[in-house]
Amino acid sequence: MKTPSIPHRLRIGLLGAGRIGTVHATTLVQRIPTAELVAIADPQIEAAQSLADQLRVPNVTPDAHTILNDPNIDAVLICTPTASHPALIAAAASAGKHIFCEKPVALDLALHDAAVAAAETAGVKLQIGFNRRFDANFARMRQAVIDGEIGQVEILHIISRDPAPPALDYLRTSGGIFLDMTIHDFDMARFLTGSEIVQVYVQGAVLVDPAIASVGDIDSHVTLLRFANGAIGSIENSRRAGFGYDQRAEILGSRGAIHTSNNYPNNVVISNHNTVYRDLPLNFFMQRYVEAFASEIATFVRSVHEDLPVAVSAADARAALVVALAAQRSHTEQRPINIP
Amino acid sequence: MKTPSIPHRLRIGLLGAGRIGTVHATTLVQRIPTAELVAIADPQIEAAQSLADQLRVPNVTPDAHTILNDPNIDAVLICTPTASHPALIAAAASAGKHIFCEKPVALDLALHDAAVAAAETAGVKLQIGFNRRFDANFARMRQAVIDGEIGQVEILHIISRDPAPPALDYLRTSGGIFLDMTIHDFDMARFLTGSEIVQVYVQGAVLVDPAIASVGDIDSHVTLLRFANGAIGSIENSRRAGFGYDQRAEILGSRGAIHTSNNYPNNVVISNHNTVYRDLPLNFFMQRYVEAFASEIATFVRSVHEDLPVAVSAADARAALVVALAAQRSHTEQRPINIP
Amino acid sequence: MKTPSIPHRLRIGLLGAGRIGTVHATTLVQRIPTAELVAIADPQIEAAQSLADQLRVPNVTPDAHTILNDPNIDAVLICTPTASHPALIAAAASAGKHIFCEKPVALDLALHDAAVAAAETAGVKLQIGFNRRFDANFARMRQAVIDGEIGQVEILHIISRDPAPPALDYLRTSGGIFLDMTIHDFDMARFLTGSEIVQVYVQGAVLVDPAIASVGDIDSHVTLLRFANGAIGSIENSRRAGFGYDQRAEILGSRGAIHTSNNYPNNVVISNHNTVYRDLPLNFFMQRYVEAFASEIATFVRSVHEDLPVAVSAADARAALVVALAAQRSHTEQRPINIP
Amino acid sequence: MKTPSIPHRLRIGLLGAGRIGTVHATTLVQRIPTAELVAIADPQIEAAQSLADQLRVPNVTPDAHTILNDPNIDAVLICTPTASHPALIAAAASAGKHIFCEKPVALDLALHDAAVAAAETAGVKLQIGFNRRFDANFARMRQAVIDGEIGQVEILHIISRDPAPPALDYLRTSGGIFLDMTIHDFDMARFLTGSEIVQVYVQGAVLVDPAIASVGDIDSHVTLLRFANGAIGSIENSRRAGFGYDQRAEILGSRGAIHTSNNYPNNVVISNHNTVYRDLPLNFFMQRYVEAFASEIATFVRSVHEDLPVAVSAADARAALVVALAAQRSHTEQRPINIP
Repeated sequence: MKTPSIPHRLRIGLLGAGRIGTVHATTLVQRIPTAELVAIADPQIEAAQSLADQLRVPNVTPDAHTILNDPNIDAVLICTPTASHPALIAAAASAGKHIFCEKPVALDLALHDAAVAAAETAGVKLQIGFNRRFDANFARMRQAVIDGEIGQVEILHIISRDPAPPALDYLRTSGGIFLDMTIHDFDMARFLTGSEIVQVYVQGAVLVDPAIASVGDIDSHVTLLRFANGAIGSIENSRRAGFGYDQRAEILGSRGAIHTSNNYPNNVVISNHNTVYRDLPLNFFMQRYVEAFASEIATFVRSVHEDLPVAVSAADARAALVVALAAQRSHTEQRPINIP
Repeated sequence: MKTPSIPHRLRIGLLGAGRIGTVHATTLVQRIPTAELVAIADPQIEAAQSLADQLRVPNVTPDAHTILNDPNIDAVLICTPTASHPALIAAAASAGKHIFCEKPVALDLALHDAAVAAAETAGVKLQIGFNRRFDANFARMRQAVIDGEIGQVEILHIISRDPAPPALDYLRTSGGIFLDMTIHDFDMARFLTGSEIVQVYVQGAVLVDPAIASVGDIDSHVTLLRFANGAIGSIENSRRAGFGYDQRAEILGSRGAIHTSNNYPNNVVISNHNTVYRDLPLNFFMQRYVEAFASEIATFVRSVHEDLPVAVSAADARAALVVALAAQRSHTEQRPINIP
Repeated sequence: MKTPSIPHRLRIGLLGAGRIGTVHATTLVQRIPTAELVAIADPQIEAAQSLADQLRVPNVTPDAHTILNDPNIDAVLICTPTASHPALIAAAASAGKHIFCEKPVALDLALHDAAVAAAETAGVKLQIGFNRRFDANFARMRQAVIDGEIGQVEILHIISRDPAPPALDYLRTSGGIFLDMTIHDFDMARFLTGSEIVQVYVQGAVLVDPAIASVGDIDSHVTLLRFANGAIGSIENSRRAGFGYDQRAEILGSRGAIHTSNNYPNNVVISNHNTVYRDLPLNFFMQRYVEAFASEIATFVRSVHEDLPVAVSAADARAALVVALAAQRSHTEQRPINIP
Repeated sequence: MKTPSIPHRLRIGLLGAGRIGTVHATTLVQRIPTAELVAIADPQIEAAQSLADQLRVPNVTPDAHTILNDPNIDAVLICTPTASHPALIAAAASAGKHIFCEKPVALDLALHDAAVAAAETAGVKLQIGFNRRFDANFARMRQAVIDGEIGQVEILHIISRDPAPPALDYLRTSGGIFLDMTIHDFDMARFLTGSEIVQVYVQGAVLVDPAIASVGDIDSHVTLLRFANGAIGSIENSRRAGFGYDQRAEILGSRGAIHTSNNYPNNVVISNHNTVYRDLPLNFFMQRYVEAFASEIATFVRSVHEDLPVAVSAADARAALVVALAAQRSHTEQRPINIP
């Protein structure tokens, strides 16, 4: 709660007033006294206007470049569809804005690299939106590994399941489950173990909804991982947990093990004459990760203010993308894929 | 996240920039878009100024009456020492301000009644700060009772322990453990069971720190309760749980039971070669009840905006006070005390 | 599993082939290689015969004195109705048999003292059946207290609830809830804290079944305790938990706290689209305490073989009886009762 | 506890007085009133004698054939080293004895099939020792699947870790981790899902002890499974959990999920000023599965007495062996192996 005396509040523009843009805008306005949200851009101007009204943001525009060209804006949050990320990163970088960009930067490596090069050349900060690193559970696991509480990491298991599949329209342009969903888990695997993934092998299936096959995607898989440090791991994904947003992990180390359970809306347990029960875990990613989203934006703002390295770099995003592309290939070719 | 179109934001003045005043001020500024905090009063003007700077509140004053006399202010939050509550309630009421007042309203019934009568005469809202009713755990317990998930309430047990005793200076003017601490549990007992307490018997002791005896108080007790509906209950209080802020309850009903455990900063469990462990529960009442504090203020603001009955009334506060005074007497006279 | 070379197996006679007699007989035959059950006495000879057939015990008799007079028998287990305990203890003692007697020894102190004096005079072992001391959960709690894991004991809370009330016929001769049921908890309170109870105050009620009132008993109470060492405690009893056999305790100490939860038939948790649930806790005292019963009998056999002091003495039984009688009086007179 | 009137107790001979032979012998003597252990054979006659003394078994012999040729013996438990299983099964079958044989029947399919054919020809019962099917946790999971509590099985995850690696001498002749350890998990995977495994892919490593590599084995692996019904799964094995015997599983189904945690020696949780902790899970397979071992032998005895199909058949053992051999090959050839 201590606010150091700050020369000025970071002036931020939001690009994209959709679901995740709304989350970050709300965080900025309600939780980050060291920044202010001064403008919102969205081609769907009603969305931008409605969000601006709600949060009392003074400026809205249908055109992201209005914000990029505004010399009074210090930084932008890119929350637009993935396809637009590379060009917006490049434009923001050449305009000298610091950048927070939602994951993934791009769906292929060439686009990713070009966009990142632009940011590097311009010398602006570029943080990528792997929000789970800021979650209290996963951050505590990472700390346990760093502190040696469980010795050397040997086996990792990540469970990551959505409560229900997204709309087919979303899935059509999502890039597929590995680039859209598992990429978070690939990042988490690197983050938790502190080691790079060197091989993937996928067992995937359409178990939830045959319509997902019709758009060329799968909805369930277990992916086997090999790490550079010799550790082994697996990731379970499903588009439908049914009971809530299922986000867990566990690690076996040489001196112990660590696991985390889900987050629940309350801790109440009821016993009646038939069963012992509690309410379902949190269902919605915004509830589950509300504190993580707030923390990642606060961290970005601090990185700019204090000129610190960003917490999640473009190199992190690239590494996860490389693994996701290898997983896609493993699924298509039905064989283990080594990652150089 | 939906904000209805609101004619104007409720304009609120804060009286008292101490610990709990800071909590409520922060909630108002960061979480309640339907209200705005326009002024802060505290005789310690530096505290008021510092809080105002942090939250960008435009006005500060050493004198509560500056706020009470300001015709542009709709409501006040009274977060001053208990002794000043009755006079401030009366003054705010006669100035036509809606009132949120921290518990207890007063340390004796005559003062309580006079203050409440003033608010009733003036026709202003008066909500009392029993924040625990808004906690997700206790609210879920209450809902289970109302919904008949456990049948008729038969036995209640409340555990309420501070992590560590407050400063002796605080204890000197606190009114004693029953009026300062257990009053929350008496309210919770009424809230959870939906029945009035008709008898108390106290077993109290100084087990934590002999210095607490020197200021005429105790630091530990178990108090046995009898309810009007025939149910039985007990409350455990200690000024020192050591491991954190211990806030739990359980109820046995005719068709089942319900209990709630503490809140933790994360859900991570670590097993090493010696033990299976996790981090301590939340230690600080502001962390533990951060959402409850936010919800009680949001509820107050909504009561005023929508002209609804307040969620926690002066009658609730009076009932808890009556029990607390009976508990004091039980402790002094070492016998069960009936409450008419 | 190591069996030392033993001169001979302890030859034991069982007096009473009812529910608890069957438990102990089964333990003796199946789990205690250092003893053998050689005879069973029960006036209901069919019960004795059926149990003997099942466990291949060679001798049955309707008359306990046949066993008491048998010079080849080393020890007896007294599992008859409470009213017969004192006379059987005296007779067994004068016959030189070591004695394991179910609790309580007697329903009044004079009878208790006379029976115990007989055993002392005869120099035979006399262990009383407070089985919960041998339960893994409560034994671990006791060990934590002894080892100083939580510092000095300050507040104790015991929850002890039957799944459902016993038959009215049983209740008619049980001696009332304090002598029949709470006596276990009074023993547990002494055992866990290592301190004597010096005051009790009871809030009791008939909440489960009005028929229980018709036999002059109550079915629910919370009893407030004061200990000689300054600690405070409470015991919750109900004759109907509904969801199972509810047997828990917790202690707050100066350096931490300890609690234990119930025992379940399995650790499986199921989440569906409505709730997260598990099977009910163990319902029957014989399942819940099967290992404790086995351990108490094994301990008795070892005490005799190795001439060690018994684990639960007649003095322990007397102390619990004194408290139970005081609790009865507190309930009748509706006031706190001091125990000299 | 009900014992039906039985014409005669099943007369059983034990072949092999090692660790698991001792477990089963103890169960027979202490828990199965419908059977009696009449003879023990072990080339290490001292081991046989010591066990016989302890359990009061009348006959011992260094030669299994003494038991196989005894016309008064109804059934044998084969608890000898794996290499001797096929010949002993064949000999027991031709002598008309019913057979309980520890897993695996053989380390290759030809030997397995020949032994099983002998039993089939002779018309004797042949039950294989996959004890985990009788564990309360895994049996409850299987029941949930059968009862449709979680809908169709989609993803399975099995965690199976020994507390510490066995002696190198044991590992040298164990057949390797897949035939020695994972074969239990392959059986569990078939049992829990009710579907056959059609593909395996192994990521294995020596992470625990380099000496294990020196005997040609690995100590850690994650194995990816594909089932005939379309489900996906993975098995985690480690020879060293460190904190105890780690035996868990979870299943995601179309309408929910199910998981089970480990078994602990008690349910006590202690909070001090640094941490919240409990004792380690059960460490030893005999403690963890004591009830499962007892139940599998009781089930075998009942199968013989009541002429029922055995609970775990030779076909089950063969199916697990086929998968284990495929896993070995996957590990060696570093590629997914399809199982016809």
